[in-house]
Amino acid sequence: MNLKQYIEVMLPAIEKELQDQVARLDAKGTKEFHEMLTYHMGWTGEGSGREATGKRLRPLILLLATASQGADWKTSLPAAAAIELVHNFSLVHDDVQDNSEKRRGRPTVWTKWGVPMAINVGDALFVMSNQAVMDLIKTHPPLTVVRAATILHNTCLDLTRGQFLDMSYEERNDINIDDYWPMVGGKTSSLLSACTHIGALLGNAGEEEQEAYRQFGFHLGLAFQVQDDILGIWGDETVTGKSAVSDLVEGKNSLPILFGIGKKGKFAKRWAQGPITPDEVKSVAALLEDEGARSYSEEMSEKETQTALRFLENAKPRGAAGESMLELANMLLKRNQ
Amino acid sequence: MNLKQYIEVMLPAIEKELQDQVARLDAKGTKEFHEMLTYHMGWTGEGSGREATGKRLRPLILLLATASQGADWKTSLPAAAAIELVHNFSLVHDDVQDNSEKRRGRPTVWTKWGVPMAINVGDALFVMSNQAVMDLIKTHPPLTVVRAATILHNTCLDLTRGQFLDMSYEERNDINIDDYWPMVGGKTSSLLSACTHIGALLGNAGEEEQEAYRQFGFHLGLAFQVQDDILGIWGDETVTGKSAVSDLVEGKNSLPILFGIGKKGKFAKRWAQGPITPDEVKSVAALLEDEGARSYSEEMSEKETQTALRFLENAKPRGAAGESMLELANMLLKRNQ
Repeated sequence: MNLKQYIEVMLPAIEKELQDQVARLDAKGTKEFHEMLTYHMGWTGEGSGREATGKRLRPLILLLATASQGADWKTSLPAAAAIELVHNFSLVHDDVQDNSEKRRGRPTVWTKWGVPMAINVGDALFVMSNQAVMDLIKTHPPLTVVRAATILHNTCLDLTRGQFLDMSYEERNDINIDDYWPMVGGKTSSLLSACTHIGALLGNAGEEEQEAYRQFGFHLGLAFQVQDDILGIWGDETVTGKSAVSDLVEGKNSLPILFGIGKKGKFAKRWAQGPITPDEVKSVAALLEDEGARSYSEEMSEKETQTALRFLENAKPRGAAGESMLELANMLLKRNQ
Repeated sequence: MNLKQYIEVMLPAIEKELQDQVARLDAKGTKEFHEMLTYHMGWTGEGSGREATGKRLRPLILLLATASQGADWKTSLPAAAAIELVHNFSLVHDDVQDNSEKRRGRPTVWTKWGVPMAINVGDALFVMSNQAVMDLIKTHPPLTVVRAATILHNTCLDLTRGQFLDMSYEERNDINIDDYWPMVGGKTSSLLSACTHIGALLGNAGEEEQEAYRQFGFHLGLAFQVQDDILGIWGDETVTGKSAVSDLVEGKNSLPILFGIGKKGKFAKRWAQGPITPDEVKSVAALLEDEGARSYSEEMSEKETQTALRFLENAKPRGAAGESMLELANMLLKRNQ
């Protein structure tokens, strides 16, 4: 089997598992509540479908990690659903916190149902992630379930820590690149490391391999986020103005921007004067590139990628699933093999 | 030992366990985040102390349930902390959802740090409740940990369901007393039933006893909530106007109010015309009493109390701890024995 074939069998299974988990709420009197959840998950409402669900990359990586240990990936489905539910809980709350009106091209939950309901929708998805991971008891020894849940919970604390840092930076004017890594470690990398770690644990990997899988996921997350940050300023659409979502306009705490602030040059001066307007995007992006933010970020992305791949080697993934996991990692990093 | 003596040894132990759980966040760079949590828990900031922490009734009941099975209550401390953390997570999110500026006489988290931070504080307390319950692994078999966690997670889903119902009633004008019980079952009773259920489970009670403990907690919660609803309209302070927090002014979905709405009499007519003002409180409370809301609610409270006590009998609590649990239940219901 190759990656495409794995995705073809895994994706419907992930979707089915997610729907079963969310169905816990489809009880009398809470139909509308269930609709809010299925809307956010991309299954119902205007614009539902593949575009709206997201790529389900995290659960795919988790299942491939299990399969790359020679184990049956189907027994990891509840954990894969748990990870995706955590991801989605954090998106629903993020959208409230960032005041974002759109997510994957559709109105966000709070835009449709208000902030109080959206908080509750996020909470429910969070609860369901906890319930999903407990469902591992059907196929795994209790101690393995406790271990998987513990990894998940620690990851969730990292998420709230990263979220706190991200929000707190808005109040501060002394941030620089040193502040970037703990934030991204919490917001992006922790969840990816939970995927590879739990996937390996459920595939009965040894302690050392588990640690290598965990580190692989963590550095993959860092590399991915830096890559995403670069595209957020110098991506084709961003620079040509085809997309309105330049990180410069959004004021995101991205690596190139924090690098530029730390340089205390022309960019930092302009940044301190207030929001970048869409018609400035091209010139400010060029300025930031001149000051070295792009080459620094590319260097960091490459460094983290190499670190991730080194850990992947130590993790000793096996067979077609192992190769597919590597392929998926490269896809995530938008690298040609 | 009597209840007072139990409380004297249990309360400091609960507080210590809670502080240990929350200390997971006291890492470099997130000091302010930790402060938000300790402020809400009542340990730090203006007005901190016993008044600010709340009575910790839920963890006390859980520990007494364990002790009433002849087991060492200290081994249940992580579960007791988990329950209290769930309770507090829901309070932080509730305050945002209800736009409440005060909690136990102090400014709420969102009032001090804004809505985005408050959402994150609630999320972190929720995560910590999950982490706390996993700490049971130090003293219990893994399968018991999975069972306790599963009870907790199911309870949390009930909480979000109750919260959804409560919020959704604000948009509806066709609610009546039938809508009351599922809401209160989710918002209040579920967590109390988790206390008695998990407490009994960890005390090695048999399946039947566990179910009796669970039902005891559930009906205790219903009786308690109805009692609280009665005081919210006819409590001494409420009627005399000493307190500004009449449920009539707050527009709460309480049992007497839903009863009055369902009656479609003079109260329902007045209610439909918009918020009750503080100077109307006395006359509207009298109107509601005339229409039978008070006697109905008292009847319901008494009925649920009797049901709770019947289940407690089946639960076969033992010794001084069993008697203390009954005493605490009576305290909760503001009953003289």
